[in-house]
Amino acid sequence: MQIIEVHTKSRPSEVYCGAGALEEARRFLKDKDVFVVTDENVAQIYGGRIGEWFPKAVVCTVKAGERRKNRGTLFQIIDKMLEAQLHRNSVVAALGGGVIGDMAGFAASVYMRGTRIVQIPTTLLAQVDSSVGGKPAIDYGGVKNVLGAFYQPERVFCDPLFLQTLPPREIRCGLGEIIKTGVLDAKIGDRIAENASEITDLTFLREIVADCVRFKAKIVARDETESSGLRKCLNLGHTTGHALELAYGRRSHGEYVLIGMWLESLIAEREGVCTPAWAEHVRKLVSLAEKKIPTFENVRSVLRFALLDKKNAERGSVSMILPKCRGKYGELVLSAERYAEYLGLLQERRA
Amino acid sequence: MQIIEVHTKSRPSEVYCGAGALEEARRFLKDKDVFVVTDENVAQIYGGRIGEWFPKAVVCTVKAGERRKNRGTLFQIIDKMLEAQLHRNSVVAALGGGVIGDMAGFAASVYMRGTRIVQIPTTLLAQVDSSVGGKPAIDYGGVKNVLGAFYQPERVFCDPLFLQTLPPREIRCGLGEIIKTGVLDAKIGDRIAENASEITDLTFLREIVADCVRFKAKIVARDETESSGLRKCLNLGHTTGHALELAYGRRSHGEYVLIGMWLESLIAEREGVCTPAWAEHVRKLVSLAEKKIPTFENVRSVLRFALLDKKNAERGSVSMILPKCRGKYGELVLSAERYAEYLGLLQERRA
Repeated sequence: MQIIEVHTKSRPSEVYCGAGALEEARRFLKDKDVFVVTDENVAQIYGGRIGEWFPKAVVCTVKAGERRKNRGTLFQIIDKMLEAQLHRNSVVAALGGGVIGDMAGFAASVYMRGTRIVQIPTTLLAQVDSSVGGKPAIDYGGVKNVLGAFYQPERVFCDPLFLQTLPPREIRCGLGEIIKTGVLDAKIGDRIAENASEITDLTFLREIVADCVRFKAKIVARDETESSGLRKCLNLGHTTGHALELAYGRRSHGEYVLIGMWLESLIAEREGVCTPAWAEHVRKLVSLAEKKIPTFENVRSVLRFALLDKKNAERGSVSMILPKCRGKYGELVLSAERYAEYLGLLQERRA
Repeated sequence: MQIIEVHTKSRPSEVYCGAGALEEARRFLKDKDVFVVTDENVAQIYGGRIGEWFPKAVVCTVKAGERRKNRGTLFQIIDKMLEAQLHRNSVVAALGGGVIGDMAGFAASVYMRGTRIVQIPTTLLAQVDSSVGGKPAIDYGGVKNVLGAFYQPERVFCDPLFLQTLPPREIRCGLGEIIKTGVLDAKIGDRIAENASEITDLTFLREIVADCVRFKAKIVARDETESSGLRKCLNLGHTTGHALELAYGRRSHGEYVLIGMWLESLIAEREGVCTPAWAEHVRKLVSLAEKKIPTFENVRSVLRFALLDKKNAERGSVSMILPKCRGKYGELVLSAERYAEYLGLLQERRA
């Protein structure tokens, strides 16, 4: 097992990666006042075992799904926290995927202006990305992650045990963020390319999780609150990805990020931000997880959502992080009109 | 005009105190994308002038009153922020009393994980206390300030202009926090005692505001998030004060703090935390603003609310900050039973 430290200004955070991480979580929570937030999927798979892992904990189980990452579920969790009379020294444990991690993390950040929080991510996406870095949020008013906080978990426990029960769709979702990290970090990108044929194997995934966490920890430590601009790089593929997710909402977050990276590699190439060869390399990585980019009808609503994105510094424009060349990336701001033209590429039928 | 700096870890904050502060606010906000949050009372008194002060701002006016510091109003503000398409670089300006400052501050802290915020407090209580230090919160589920954030305003503008239109009840409310500061800081306490006959005069208040802000700035700079325990001293009188406020809710926050200090000075004396002479001194200061401590019926619900207070480190006990002697104070934890006995003193008829 590896222990990766995230040195942020607000609070140090430790990520335990590998077999035995769940045991570490149990040890850490043993003598504490614990409040577990989980969802019906996790509860169905692990059932009584949750009670065995955390014998004295109050367990709050909410409905599963990306669409539940909303105000209603947030207050359902908060109501239960109040009912359990949690104090600032109590520890909230998010046991689930990114949605649970986000909602429990946000609830913990506002409850009494901050209760302790640990993350026990059960999906590949959450292990590789969302559980680390302390950016919990909920969707509201049709905008992704528009209400949230910068709030570091004290510890994150990424145990490969949980990956065994994941459906293929969830694996592909996690691959979206893994491939994004591979575009940002050339060494990770090389490892993905070298292992192209077994990227869904658990042995490969187990190792790449720690690599991705280590990369993210470095970025987060240098720019916890996205103030220097450095952390923005983690949003590669996300401008279009998030807007697609809001406009269509049937695929998973990771898949939309893959599709977003695909479109944005074309934008990067045509805007002269990126060489054609590197853009091709990005699309090749994307294709490892998303064999065929789907065709979308009526992309106008995608533009509307992209304009509402909180990463935009100005109204009426769309800002995105684009790949430049090996190990390099940069921000580009496009006018709404220009971005709308590029969105048209998503409507074209592809071979 | 005085400029007091609050050196916190998260973000430096500047407080402008004195005549001309509103002018400073106008200058600061002039070229920015401004969103003013205010309430119907302020809007009624200052009406069209708000539009003159901030010509290009979007103004969000909510209903006035302590009872509105809730989830409904918070989301009313957030909805309007979304409608105005605020970005992270937009500036939210809280123009009102403590309730407006709290709600606008909390909304700004969660919107896009943090939008810029300035405070323009219009009541004595807000100028002297709540606008400074970045602890916005709302009441929820019957618990005072249970949802909130540690989030510093960039600037605070305390202009005595606003104090001229305050009703006596609002002045007394502010005096609650001023007298609390006088118990914590002996020099401020002496100044209050020396000016006993004119503590409601604007000339006196104008000066004491800056003194109280300077005291609070020192404390907040050393313990922004109440982690070292130092900042807890600002809660003197608030354990009982908040619980009374929740149980009865008709008087103002400041009045309940005064009553809370009165009861807690008796507790301090009887528990041997404080000399009888110093407890008497505290009660004398309290009496300058609250001539006669009212009698309360049925104090059982007060106990229930006190037990829910987030300052309690353990369940089943009540924690409070008590005066010890000149310039000294300390924390005391009482069992629920013991505290309930003391609450009985509030039921007794007084001469």
